[in-house]
Amino acid sequence: MSTSVNDMLRTYPADLGSVDQQAMARCIEACLACAQACTACADTCLSEGMVGELAKCIRTDMDCADIRNAPAAVLSRHTGYDADITRAVLKACAPVCKACGDECAAHADVHEHCRVCAEACRRCEQACNDLLAGPG
Amino acid sequence: MSTSVNDMLRTYPADLGSVDQQAMARCIEACLACAQACTACADTCLSEGMVGELAKCIRTDMDCADIRNAPAAVLSRHTGYDADITRAVLKACAPVCKACGDECAAHADVHEHCRVCAEACRRCEQACNDLLAGPG
Amino acid sequence: MSTSVNDMLRTYPADLGSVDQQAMARCIEACLACAQACTACADTCLSEGMVGELAKCIRTDMDCADIRNAPAAVLSRHTGYDADITRAVLKACAPVCKACGDECAAHADVHEHCRVCAEACRRCEQACNDLLAGPG
Amino acid sequence: MSTSVNDMLRTYPADLGSVDQQAMARCIEACLACAQACTACADTCLSEGMVGELAKCIRTDMDCADIRNAPAAVLSRHTGYDADITRAVLKACAPVCKACGDECAAHADVHEHCRVCAEACRRCEQACNDLLAGPG
Repeated sequence: MSTSVNDMLRTYPADLGSVDQQAMARCIEACLACAQACTACADTCLSEGMVGELAKCIRTDMDCADIRNAPAAVLSRHTGYDADITRAVLKACAPVCKACGDECAAHADVHEHCRVCAEACRRCEQACNDLLAGPG
Repeated sequence: MSTSVNDMLRTYPADLGSVDQQAMARCIEACLACAQACTACADTCLSEGMVGELAKCIRTDMDCADIRNAPAAVLSRHTGYDADITRAVLKACAPVCKACGDECAAHADVHEHCRVCAEACRRCEQACNDLLAGPG
Repeated sequence: MSTSVNDMLRTYPADLGSVDQQAMARCIEACLACAQACTACADTCLSEGMVGELAKCIRTDMDCADIRNAPAAVLSRHTGYDADITRAVLKACAPVCKACGDECAAHADVHEHCRVCAEACRRCEQACNDLLAGPG
Repeated sequence: MSTSVNDMLRTYPADLGSVDQQAMARCIEACLACAQACTACADTCLSEGMVGELAKCIRTDMDCADIRNAPAAVLSRHTGYDADITRAVLKACAPVCKACGDECAAHADVHEHCRVCAEACRRCEQACNDLLAGPG
């Protein structure tokens, strides 16, 4: 997938401060990819024969998809930067990714889409935690 | 505004546990109202003559609107309930509401839309904190 | 539910043109209420015993919830108004509401949450069509 | 950017019918990339000196970002497929992309972020139209 994340960071007219731009770009892209994977996984679970057993997985997928748009958007903004907002959003995102990744991982042996989704959640959780651990 | 929040809670086929349903319903509605107010306030700031002075307000409004959909959706789900997800989302929501409410309050004397938006943010922050303080 | 929709319209600093403000406010609120009802209905379907029979209903609910935020946001903005954008969004919204309302109505005798959701979809479809039929 | 779009399509347990899966995957990714570009462009416009001249661009960017999540989600679902919903969402998406691409293109000589964003909008508009022109 070709995004404009780095081009947009490059063309921002003001100083972006001490933030790790590569970590930020990775986190934005990981959030977008995770939201899509969770949306698709919830739908694919719905098409499985044993959908009742996957109810919690579907629900967690939907929560994870719904929260994912917030960090992708907040991290795409640099005007009037407020570190408290960024940290609050990332600190919510990481545990939701973890909960969804754990739930999907529990079904990964039986359902390949859950394995793929768990990987997307793990990458997103890692990217959020990397950004939280960095400067800025 | 007439919503179906309470009718939906009433028709849920399983036990909702110890959660305070009225506090939950108030929080869902406060999130929806706050998202709309922030979206409208960002746009209204854009139409003011001194839009440059309102850049931080517009940005904070947009962040607040973007995160508001997550708790409204997460709190509307009861299947496979995970208290960690609910708490993570509410704990992100409250400080973003506070930051946006503070920013809007700083312009409330000059711009009435900022005063209206600050009030919507305060109500949403309070509703999130009430729910965090309760059982469940 | 108490929203700031009308207060925000009232405090907009420029002329809003020939648009029917009451129809616009009703449509914004109907979209917010419909999104919440569809999110809750999808989740409630997941908790029913015969979730397999409700797979299409869950899916349509999720689509309807996902598109509902666009008109609520677009109609909340008046700066740089572009009638083509407003019409495009409303013309997408109405048939999705109709499809979701029809699907929920087909389960309304058995599942009361589907009846409640169908009503929210019908109100939103009507509000979108009212706005499309008006001036502006 | 690495997404799971194709892996998710590959692991779907039922027949996907006559739809062009590569065109669908391209459209999902183009919508995600366009939403991010528009969010970043709106914010970058806010940091420019002449933000008043960019008010319409900011507004159109926000509309475009808000509608972009709907097709990305709807196209990620295959259970209970309803061609009317898919077509309604794509038919709304294409003209909003066109309006935003045109507005950004008008500032592309002066603001490089508008040029980058216009390209993301054009790719997304094309991907939506390709899918509308295809089977399914």
